Amino acid sequence: MHEAGRSYRMSELLATYVLTDQGCDAEKRAEQIAIGLTVGSWTDLPLLKQEQLKKHKGRVVKVEETESTLGEKQTTVTIAYPEANFTSDIPAVLTTVFGKLSLDGKIKLADLEFSQSFKQSLPGPKFGVYGIRKKIGEFERPLLMSIFKGVIGRDMEDLKEQLRQQALGGVDLIKDDEILFETGSAPFEKRITEGKKVLEAAFEETGRKTLYAVNLTGRTMELKSKARKAAELGADVLLLNVFAYGLDVLQSLAEDDDIPLPIMAHPAVSGALTSSPHYGFSHSLLLGKLNRYAGADFSLFPSPYGSVALPKQDALAIYDECTKEDVFKPTFAVPSAGIHPGMVPLLMKDFGIDHIINAGGGIHGHPNGAAGGGRAFRAIIDAVLEAEPVEEKAKRSPDLKLALEKWGKVEVSV
Amino acid sequence: MHEAGRSYRMSELLATYVLTDQGCDAEKRAEQIAIGLTVGSWTDLPLLKQEQLKKHKGRVVKVEETESTLGEKQTTVTIAYPEANFTSDIPAVLTTVFGKLSLDGKIKLADLEFSQSFKQSLPGPKFGVYGIRKKIGEFERPLLMSIFKGVIGRDMEDLKEQLRQQALGGVDLIKDDEILFETGSAPFEKRITEGKKVLEAAFEETGRKTLYAVNLTGRTMELKSKARKAAELGADVLLLNVFAYGLDVLQSLAEDDDIPLPIMAHPAVSGALTSSPHYGFSHSLLLGKLNRYAGADFSLFPSPYGSVALPKQDALAIYDECTKEDVFKPTFAVPSAGIHPGMVPLLMKDFGIDHIINAGGGIHGHPNGAAGGGRAFRAIIDAVLEAEPVEEKAKRSPDLKLALEKWGKVEVSV
Repeated sequence: MHEAGRSYRMSELLATYVLTDQGCDAEKRAEQIAIGLTVGSWTDLPLLKQEQLKKHKGRVVKVEETESTLGEKQTTVTIAYPEANFTSDIPAVLTTVFGKLSLDGKIKLADLEFSQSFKQSLPGPKFGVYGIRKKIGEFERPLLMSIFKGVIGRDMEDLKEQLRQQALGGVDLIKDDEILFETGSAPFEKRITEGKKVLEAAFEETGRKTLYAVNLTGRTMELKSKARKAAELGADVLLLNVFAYGLDVLQSLAEDDDIPLPIMAHPAVSGALTSSPHYGFSHSLLLGKLNRYAGADFSLFPSPYGSVALPKQDALAIYDECTKEDVFKPTFAVPSAGIHPGMVPLLMKDFGIDHIINAGGGIHGHPNGAAGGGRAFRAIIDAVLEAEPVEEKAKRSPDLKLALEKWGKVEVSV
Repeated sequence: MHEAGRSYRMSELLATYVLTDQGCDAEKRAEQIAIGLTVGSWTDLPLLKQEQLKKHKGRVVKVEETESTLGEKQTTVTIAYPEANFTSDIPAVLTTVFGKLSLDGKIKLADLEFSQSFKQSLPGPKFGVYGIRKKIGEFERPLLMSIFKGVIGRDMEDLKEQLRQQALGGVDLIKDDEILFETGSAPFEKRITEGKKVLEAAFEETGRKTLYAVNLTGRTMELKSKARKAAELGADVLLLNVFAYGLDVLQSLAEDDDIPLPIMAHPAVSGALTSSPHYGFSHSLLLGKLNRYAGADFSLFPSPYGSVALPKQDALAIYDECTKEDVFKPTFAVPSAGIHPGMVPLLMKDFGIDHIINAGGGIHGHPNGAAGGGRAFRAIIDAVLEAEPVEEKAKRSPDLKLALEKWGKVEVSV
């Protein structure tokens, strides 16, 4: 193989699709995709043209007949797209591998595998798991996060009291509700500055550091300047509804040196892209790999247990993409929704130490309020780490006892 | 009802969802959505708090039991969200009405109905159907568009010759392939300036105006400056892969006075958001209403006839949203994919005069090349307008005759 041949083979983007009931010859369909989305046609081209276009031609890497869990006939197809065909940006990638194709029958984009050179154009998380742990000063347990509840229409005093109660319970992070926009008496900049004072006062009281993730919202073209301003004001973390904007916007924030803040990717709107078993993106690609590559320090996604739940294999696949060996720092996985203290042993069995336990109702709904909820979570996390029976721990933690009475304990099967 | 009450009732956003197999009491679910996505809780709030929060509370407008075409049990739910809860931008709207909810079971966002005041914050198309027609000078027939084919890896000369052939056939618009990025020897600015020369020369020859839609690509944060540059260089139309970026990006381009160019919205990647019957967005909302409100002068979508096809009712619903009476100018509907001359009578029956007939293979695959393909289309459009039998027209148009021999004619049922 000559030099040019070797070099272009080295810079391909591999896209893996799952096709359902496609009802024609799978090999042929794969070949149509590989040619149709690159050079357009091939066998009818003159040889000279073929020679010229060779380095732009897509190729079929794999075609595999499979069956879905529902017994549908499926085909898994991997196509290699020469990176010479598109620029190093996510919109170009998505348009190439899943532009027209997203409209063409039952087809789901399961995975993308980028070349090392393409990866070098992407930022990955600025802080990642270790960087976040350093900010908080906790290295050997899952972190604990709580969410503001019922924030719409509340005034700043209300939010400050919520923030204070959450911090006093010992949570490591507190995030804005993703549906809190700049409408009321608690706009973005004020939340940052006032929130900071509350958390500093709580720190004086407890000696524990708590980070506040403030919801970065508004028009796309203004997000960078708003984020820079947030950094100037001393914000801890930015919360971003990535899929209401686009992965490229996340990337722009992540790679901006004037925004030295961790970014928390919220999955709002992503269900429209991932929920169908036949269409859209796989959960692990969108909420795991692409969030991480584009620069999310945290990725929130539905846990497999709660009210809004993902199939367990999907949630674990997101976690895996967030944390597995790669050129990028790992992203903190945050399985969310419907989490209460009694779920912690199961969460820690499934997601280990390096994830974030995130609760809303499971904190605020505690009989002793948000502070009690936080203490209950912290107690059961300690129990699991110390291999102490939860019931024993509850004897010494009245908050944990109350939580278990209210929500029960999810048994962990061995 | 007091004044405040009346005013907030006037500024609500109505969101209509279709829920499939939701397996619990529909009224209760609707109430949960209305409360959960606004004030968070209601019946357990003290009366004073209820009074304070009243103007932020969502309300259930309609709950209707229906059945899908597949016989599934469905529920159509309309919720009114007070606009006091979010800012006037599309990311805030999507996060509010379909953020968390997009992740919560089989739920599809079917429609959004904005208040007059919210609409005033959106740009709508700068040119619209009539503005585009004025640019071309054709008011009484469907316009004809063709698409570059097999452009990846081709040099500028190749593209110029394609452009010339297409223009000579009498097409009104020519669009870049959406997968053409700035990688090769024909970058964005050069395509604009060189393309312009080719089309001016063709105009000298034929006396017919042809517009060229150039693919605006790259990083989100650079699109505005690239678009302004395009305008300076005399570009005719911008092609945008809206759903690889986000509707808010389209809006930013549309409302920028320094970008006095029509925008053509390509549906690349949108299939990931619309294809499932159970999840994501309805076609008419995303490719019709939202594209139009956010400023698309053209909206491309799969026709109901071709290789990549939409169900006919979905294609017609997009068309309807593009063109129906509203405060915004109408968007030119462009049903695409698999269109050949023999389909024109059917297209004109279904989509009338005010749409664009868009062909790739049906132009380029003509035995007399792209110019022959264009002439064949123009001949059959004229035949339909003049109510001349297609077979009669074909006797006087050898290009049409060849096209009908190659692709046949789709019969129009009366």
